[in-house]
Amino acid sequence: MRRLTILLCAVLWSGAALAQTPSPTNLGRNPYPQVGKDGRVTFRVSAPDAPALTVNLGKDYPMTKDDKGVWTATTDPQVEGFHYYSLKAGGLSFNDPNVHSFFGTGRWASAVEVPEAPAGAAFYTPRRGVPQGAVRSVRYWSGVCGQWRRMYVYTPAGYEQDASRRYPVLYLQHGGGEDESGWIYQGFADVILDNLVAEGKAEPMIIVMVSGVAHPAGDPAADAFDRMVVEDVIPFVDARYRTLADRDHRAVAGLSWGAKQAYDLGLGYRDLFSWIGGFSGIIVIGEFRVRPAGYEDPEKFAAAYDGVFADPKWFNEHYHLLFVANGEAEGSHLKGMSELLTQRGIDNVFYQSPRTAHEWLTWRRCLYQFAQRLFK
Amino acid sequence: MRRLTILLCAVLWSGAALAQTPSPTNLGRNPYPQVGKDGRVTFRVSAPDAPALTVNLGKDYPMTKDDKGVWTATTDPQVEGFHYYSLKAGGLSFNDPNVHSFFGTGRWASAVEVPEAPAGAAFYTPRRGVPQGAVRSVRYWSGVCGQWRRMYVYTPAGYEQDASRRYPVLYLQHGGGEDESGWIYQGFADVILDNLVAEGKAEPMIIVMVSGVAHPAGDPAADAFDRMVVEDVIPFVDARYRTLADRDHRAVAGLSWGAKQAYDLGLGYRDLFSWIGGFSGIIVIGEFRVRPAGYEDPEKFAAAYDGVFADPKWFNEHYHLLFVANGEAEGSHLKGMSELLTQRGIDNVFYQSPRTAHEWLTWRRCLYQFAQRLFK
Repeated sequence: MRRLTILLCAVLWSGAALAQTPSPTNLGRNPYPQVGKDGRVTFRVSAPDAPALTVNLGKDYPMTKDDKGVWTATTDPQVEGFHYYSLKAGGLSFNDPNVHSFFGTGRWASAVEVPEAPAGAAFYTPRRGVPQGAVRSVRYWSGVCGQWRRMYVYTPAGYEQDASRRYPVLYLQHGGGEDESGWIYQGFADVILDNLVAEGKAEPMIIVMVSGVAHPAGDPAADAFDRMVVEDVIPFVDARYRTLADRDHRAVAGLSWGAKQAYDLGLGYRDLFSWIGGFSGIIVIGEFRVRPAGYEDPEKFAAAYDGVFADPKWFNEHYHLLFVANGEAEGSHLKGMSELLTQRGIDNVFYQSPRTAHEWLTWRRCLYQFAQRLFK
Repeated sequence: MRRLTILLCAVLWSGAALAQTPSPTNLGRNPYPQVGKDGRVTFRVSAPDAPALTVNLGKDYPMTKDDKGVWTATTDPQVEGFHYYSLKAGGLSFNDPNVHSFFGTGRWASAVEVPEAPAGAAFYTPRRGVPQGAVRSVRYWSGVCGQWRRMYVYTPAGYEQDASRRYPVLYLQHGGGEDESGWIYQGFADVILDNLVAEGKAEPMIIVMVSGVAHPAGDPAADAFDRMVVEDVIPFVDARYRTLADRDHRAVAGLSWGAKQAYDLGLGYRDLFSWIGGFSGIIVIGEFRVRPAGYEDPEKFAAAYDGVFADPKWFNEHYHLLFVANGEAEGSHLKGMSELLTQRGIDNVFYQSPRTAHEWLTWRRCLYQFAQRLFK
């Protein structure tokens, strides 16, 4: 018992000295992974008979084994935010059983959260006394895809109390390898909106989240995302929820691959959407690069999306918001895209999340900024 | 290319011959695990450099590697239903990256579904044209636990259309190692109720699902589940949803460990609940066995739960339903418990799910039976 106490004291002391804290993604009271103040992540996994074990967080970190069969590795400093990772052994990549899983990287994946300063996290942290909305998991039949699918629907606080009020709708897409759960479990979209609305900084709105992976019935190689949203999702949502069912009250946004989908919907269906947000993703004109194609060729630019940019004056009057954003650590290409749009007369708002990378802290901040500009 | 075609034909032919079908839990179009008509499950995992790989489904099955580094194992025949499993290598137990994960066995776990005959599955399969309820994920503050927690709340079809109608409430608990998501993602409680209500077989009701793991603030070794439900959960639900907030319209049920919790709540708080269901779990009297303690000692029996069984006539008038159920493959101890209760004059209903084990197909069927008897 005394041995245990000493051990515990030693662990607590070393924890205080190194200022390592368990990741908020850890299951229960699991102490590992731990994050240091310098952003280094320490992983610890028991696998006494494994000949080798590696943790991959951006790159491979071979782990070392102690005499009890516990493997440890500490990463390079990570930028603050949410990072998927996996364990690797024998050519197989798999989950860390010590942490929560999130649907990402095409499967249920482990993740570690490198915390930002507590003050920074306040906007996505639940607060007592803030009226809460609700997130619904709803099954819907997609005629386009010929299958039952699931959507998440956030309704704001008060939605269920005042049955006469109608709300604008934001369609919000996840990134590649993720699904409709991402904006809730990785992104905390519901908490962000609850807090913003309580502070009077955002309009109460409904948020609809669907999977961006959609194939037409019988053709698993083809894409039917746009058609599914237009023919199945929007009519379902407008019939089932108290929406303001017109383009002035309908927004679309997404992250990474979902940003591309949001631009496709928002720019491609000008009678359906008038507010557009792209987080860490580009408007594809000509080819999948900002430069040199498309943007620098006035004809290609004017022809994009059936001519939506052809008359900047019309665009600026017709659309309420074109919002372009990413994380500072992702580089400057989206700032460049925003500037190119501005040069061509297309009004847009650019936001860059300080320090963060291509991950969910960036996208939480993007939503926080974007939502404050919506439906006003 | 021809090689590939031949290979595909061979695979398809052998698939048809063996009548193996992918598990419904597989991610996307992953072909493995596959389930044979005889209930044998075949696992296939690529891990070219692993020295050994084992799949555990009830017991260990060592896998064998082909010359491409793909490991395969086929299990003994499994009873129909939902089975957690894990891969094992080097002393570590982890997820199969080819399938969906579910929160069970204390972590995010892999699972395979051995299908029953399609007609049997109809009661938990979504149907077009059936009005759907909704499942909300709701954060609530627990003063007892001193933490934010999450509950799932199912509201029946029509809840949002008629703002004047109030509904009875079923509090429904998961099993050990699971959490509040179990009854939706493993149990399909929402689909079961939607279908039952549409057929006129069950009353529309609200279902509340919370995690059964609850510690009082500052004391992680102690249990505070009952207090949390009584002091935090029920008042929150009655304030936030249109409930019929009295014992005649409040039920509690659970599975396995959650059955024990449901009995503790239902029998321990006689002024709060009048409908009780226990699936694959026992009413603990004296010690954690049906026999020989408690049940065969009239004094202990009469003293249990502050004397709730002391006067059978009072019990039978006061409680609307005591429902005891399990799966046939689990054995006869709960049938015995039901008979002992009957012998002591305590009215109860017993149900046994044909063929099934201590797993979710049993509990889906239990809910299907139990819900039809509620609030009538």
